[in-house]
Amino acid sequence: MNDNRPIGVFDSGVGGLTVAREIKRLLPHENIIYFGDTKHLPYGDKSKETITKFTKKITKFLVKQNCKAIVVACNSATSNSIEAIREAAGDTLVIDVINPVAKKVAYELHQKIGVIATKATVNSHAYQSYIKKYNRHLKVIELATPLLVPIIEEGFRNTPVSKNALESYLSYKKFEDIDTIILGCTHYPLIEKEVNAVFQGRVKVVDSPLIVVNELIHEMEKDNLMGNSPNPTYQFYLSDYTENFAKLAKQIFGKSISLEQKKL
Amino acid sequence: MNDNRPIGVFDSGVGGLTVAREIKRLLPHENIIYFGDTKHLPYGDKSKETITKFTKKITKFLVKQNCKAIVVACNSATSNSIEAIREAAGDTLVIDVINPVAKKVAYELHQKIGVIATKATVNSHAYQSYIKKYNRHLKVIELATPLLVPIIEEGFRNTPVSKNALESYLSYKKFEDIDTIILGCTHYPLIEKEVNAVFQGRVKVVDSPLIVVNELIHEMEKDNLMGNSPNPTYQFYLSDYTENFAKLAKQIFGKSISLEQKKL
Repeated sequence: MNDNRPIGVFDSGVGGLTVAREIKRLLPHENIIYFGDTKHLPYGDKSKETITKFTKKITKFLVKQNCKAIVVACNSATSNSIEAIREAAGDTLVIDVINPVAKKVAYELHQKIGVIATKATVNSHAYQSYIKKYNRHLKVIELATPLLVPIIEEGFRNTPVSKNALESYLSYKKFEDIDTIILGCTHYPLIEKEVNAVFQGRVKVVDSPLIVVNELIHEMEKDNLMGNSPNPTYQFYLSDYTENFAKLAKQIFGKSISLEQKKL
Repeated sequence: MNDNRPIGVFDSGVGGLTVAREIKRLLPHENIIYFGDTKHLPYGDKSKETITKFTKKITKFLVKQNCKAIVVACNSATSNSIEAIREAAGDTLVIDVINPVAKKVAYELHQKIGVIATKATVNSHAYQSYIKKYNRHLKVIELATPLLVPIIEEGFRNTPVSKNALESYLSYKKFEDIDTIILGCTHYPLIEKEVNAVFQGRVKVVDSPLIVVNELIHEMEKDNLMGNSPNPTYQFYLSDYTENFAKLAKQIFGKSISLEQKKL
């Protein structure tokens, strides 16, 4: 028995596409519905109440679209609103982007883990508390790096601007002796190489999208949710259609997408 | 006869504070109500419909607060929604940030004017059409520079990040022979010195806040709206209270402000 209902994925903007791309790669026979809340992006600077209000609405929309699973492809949404999202999702499977990563790193050999993320994620201390739930001996240092999202969104990857911003952020005193770094924002895998360059191989960069999608596959198999669509569809909804998103979405995800504005 | 009703000022975030600061400096006996729509910032990436919806609501709120004048201290709002704002304001005096600047530069000796602004402002071509209304012989080149707002908001002024971003933007081919530049976003006066440094004095940077507030004074005098409060109050409303705004507001405007969250 195969279940060909779509997998729902959402984020405030393009960041979640790094997760959606990984779903497409590892699950090439699944239909995907992506919701980008571009009208309210970025979430990273907003309050818990505001993020929760928006993410509940999106979750309900995805449930209405008959999604079999919902991937919260946004760290700010996960860290601030995951309980509200799970409640809004009812019986639908919900995968977030923090818990699978926390579980994975907690059981490997690490001494001191750095996390870079948006302000909303860092203020919630979600990585710290999730990781310590699995292994309370680990040291977790969180740092807000709010300029990285706009740098990525505005096409300043691989320029002196991104290089200088990363050098400034990653020279954070408390990062001196970390052995592992988590890119705690779904945008950041897009500058993974540059992060690596700053650390010159000294620090291991965790591959969050891979870990999250492996968790999704694991849970879908357990619940008999695997699909087998020969020609899967990729439907994108945006709360505010902008050329910028369309361009970036095609760059990151590929050209085979259908984009539509959807009031939130 | 003096009119001590407050002057309303609004923006999506902290940018409008450069205008509010100039009002406070040149009109030290006026009460000010500032509305920062931080829940929906930045406006610069949003669509005309979305910006119009938010700005109409804010205008109606300021009218309800009994404001005698409303300063639209946001270029994205002016360029996309000024007609809707004027309609929502009814009889209340409305001053925008583009028209006074366009009028002023159009009647001075310029050959070729560069404008840097957000995407929303550039896409509207507001500067071009306003300036050409007054002097159709001027050449106006507009360039979207969307990374500058987050650079300013995140404290990267006067760093290699701002320097490299400005050098990248201002090396725009069509800017080669401009003699004047307009900082077409209310955030940008905060990096005026750095813009000057890139141009090394070759290009005149227009002082937009000064021009806008002179227009405000001119119109208030004409309509008998001048106040004489000996101890004016500065009331700030935010649609989403964040520490970041509070900090920046105090840095830019001074410590004597009262901040309050207000649902939009």
